[in-house]
Amino acid sequence: MLEEWLAPKAAALESRGLTRRLRARAADERLIDLAGNDYLGLASDPRVIEAAADAVRVWGTGSTASRLVTGTTALHEEIESSLADYVGQESALVFSSGYLANLGVVTALGGPGTLLVSDEHVHASLVDACRLSRSRVEIVPHNDVDAVTKVLAERNEPHAVVMTESVFSVLSDAAPLTELAAAARAHDAVLLVDEAHGLGVTGEGRGSVHAAGLAGLDHVIVTMTLSKAMASQGGVVLGPALVRAHLINRARSFIYDTGLNPAACAAALAALQVLKNEPERPLAIHTATARLASACDVPAASGPVVSVPMPGPRETVQAAELCLAGGVRVGSFRPPSVPDGISRLRLTAHAGLTDADLDQACDVISRAIQDVS
Amino acid sequence: MLEEWLAPKAAALESRGLTRRLRARAADERLIDLAGNDYLGLASDPRVIEAAADAVRVWGTGSTASRLVTGTTALHEEIESSLADYVGQESALVFSSGYLANLGVVTALGGPGTLLVSDEHVHASLVDACRLSRSRVEIVPHNDVDAVTKVLAERNEPHAVVMTESVFSVLSDAAPLTELAAAARAHDAVLLVDEAHGLGVTGEGRGSVHAAGLAGLDHVIVTMTLSKAMASQGGVVLGPALVRAHLINRARSFIYDTGLNPAACAAALAALQVLKNEPERPLAIHTATARLASACDVPAASGPVVSVPMPGPRETVQAAELCLAGGVRVGSFRPPSVPDGISRLRLTAHAGLTDADLDQACDVISRAIQDVS
Repeated sequence: MLEEWLAPKAAALESRGLTRRLRARAADERLIDLAGNDYLGLASDPRVIEAAADAVRVWGTGSTASRLVTGTTALHEEIESSLADYVGQESALVFSSGYLANLGVVTALGGPGTLLVSDEHVHASLVDACRLSRSRVEIVPHNDVDAVTKVLAERNEPHAVVMTESVFSVLSDAAPLTELAAAARAHDAVLLVDEAHGLGVTGEGRGSVHAAGLAGLDHVIVTMTLSKAMASQGGVVLGPALVRAHLINRARSFIYDTGLNPAACAAALAALQVLKNEPERPLAIHTATARLASACDVPAASGPVVSVPMPGPRETVQAAELCLAGGVRVGSFRPPSVPDGISRLRLTAHAGLTDADLDQACDVISRAIQDVS
Repeated sequence: MLEEWLAPKAAALESRGLTRRLRARAADERLIDLAGNDYLGLASDPRVIEAAADAVRVWGTGSTASRLVTGTTALHEEIESSLADYVGQESALVFSSGYLANLGVVTALGGPGTLLVSDEHVHASLVDACRLSRSRVEIVPHNDVDAVTKVLAERNEPHAVVMTESVFSVLSDAAPLTELAAAARAHDAVLLVDEAHGLGVTGEGRGSVHAAGLAGLDHVIVTMTLSKAMASQGGVVLGPALVRAHLINRARSFIYDTGLNPAACAAALAALQVLKNEPERPLAIHTATARLASACDVPAASGPVVSVPMPGPRETVQAAELCLAGGVRVGSFRPPSVPDGISRLRLTAHAGLTDADLDQACDVISRAIQDVS
């Protein structure tokens, strides 16, 4: 039954060179990794590892239930207060993934009385959040503050939420946060900023909202993930304490989901402590992206990602394979994972990359791009 | 700005006695826990704990990216193949939460050409999945096979998916799986069964779909969670290999989410191994639910949950507080977390409960119910 339904779809994808397949990485591989999102290089840091292992022993392997039942431990409260304090927000609430954090905050604020204004490049989780919200949704051109202002001014809904990312995940460009916050303020709207790629990277680690002086404002909400710079798993919504209380009561993806496992909270806490103690780590990311961008002849990135447009999906996969053969893992992003429909290599920089790593990576990647173009 | 928006909503909830607040549990508490979902009592099992701690050391604290980039390890493949084998399915795909697994499979099969037929009592994640699917959705009365058959027969869509839970999470009653599978087969539809509360509990541990002889059929798909009986975190979709390949290519909550952390995979693998070696553990759950149900004067449960209707939300919270004072933690479920609008105590049974635990629990809970009624 499922065969007749799904097999033709699989064949159609295959014929266009768009089939995705999983490939497991090895524990002991010797690759230079420019594909993962472990931006601060902390997922294999002994301090972070031991914190996670200790937490498993103290708290067990799972949180055992939803956050509202038995799924909240002291570690959940600690990462919430520590992270909020670090990025200058009044409060934080941890979800089991960044995807669920975005779904939760948007659906809890959404509904018929709320207009959602979304940048056309926001992450899939925010797109799905809009679809799930029962709100009217206006999708505006990328980073277009005038378009945002216009739809806010013309709305009939009493409430509105403007949605963007501080650093966009695929193109790695930055949003005009100051202007967006002013537009939202002027039109009695909330600004929601996804800092998945900002935390630990921009603003000396505290993110772009903090750097722009917008942290703690009473109309700004931020989402972050613990699965990238924080070397762990989970998502967070940060903002006024009233927002946190609202989500605990209204966010279905919080209420009806098992709490994040305690080890993930402990790993994120330990990673945050390393970040506080070693403020040079975010700088190393920017040094690396500058070198990679230069080698690939693309503009320097605002965030941790260097985005290299390619002729098509097949060339992208071929180039990534050549890089792998040269000891360098890069990301290959194809439709529908690219906001502009252009297939590209996606290189993520890490604080742990050495000069020798970067020499090799620049050499291998630039040759791979030439070979397939 | 957010103050004027959200404060009145918070006050309205408070006035109805429906405000939810988080309370952290302590690591060293001496309570009898009848609220968490650690059904096999394995979240604090030394074998499961050491497996998780070892995995953190070998693989690091996070999966570092989405499953399609660097987020798949040998542990992900191993839990997928081991679990599929155990419950009699051809393949499995691990998501970072059960919520996202349900969103993923329903949206990947949904769309204008697919009718979704949903039991009115299904979990919030399946309700949200329907809303997100762009499908026409028919919600049918609870466990009503005739109603399912009727909407399947009258549909115009080429495809249809019938959605249910094997054991419902709040009322703990069972779905008529054999009849639903036959109805789906007769009308060229897929049956999707959420076994969140079946795995490790019913069918001697292998779940209700396996017990009904439906595992491995080419029109049956199952979702499970690793966060309950498997003592860990994450969700799984199981079924024909073609479904797994389809999800890898189409399920947005899989493609755009960070992979489950390796320690969670390892914990689930170790828990599964204990379950295989100690088949008496599921039986202990049923012994416990029978005693609890009898003490509370409610019918015996099909699953791991004993559901006790209460006069109202305030009485429910009061009774739960009395139980806590007596050393027993129980769940208190109030609207909107109850499918029939009736507030209730929700008691979850665990394989680790001793006879003395059950004596104390039965005594404390029955007195608490009397005291508030």
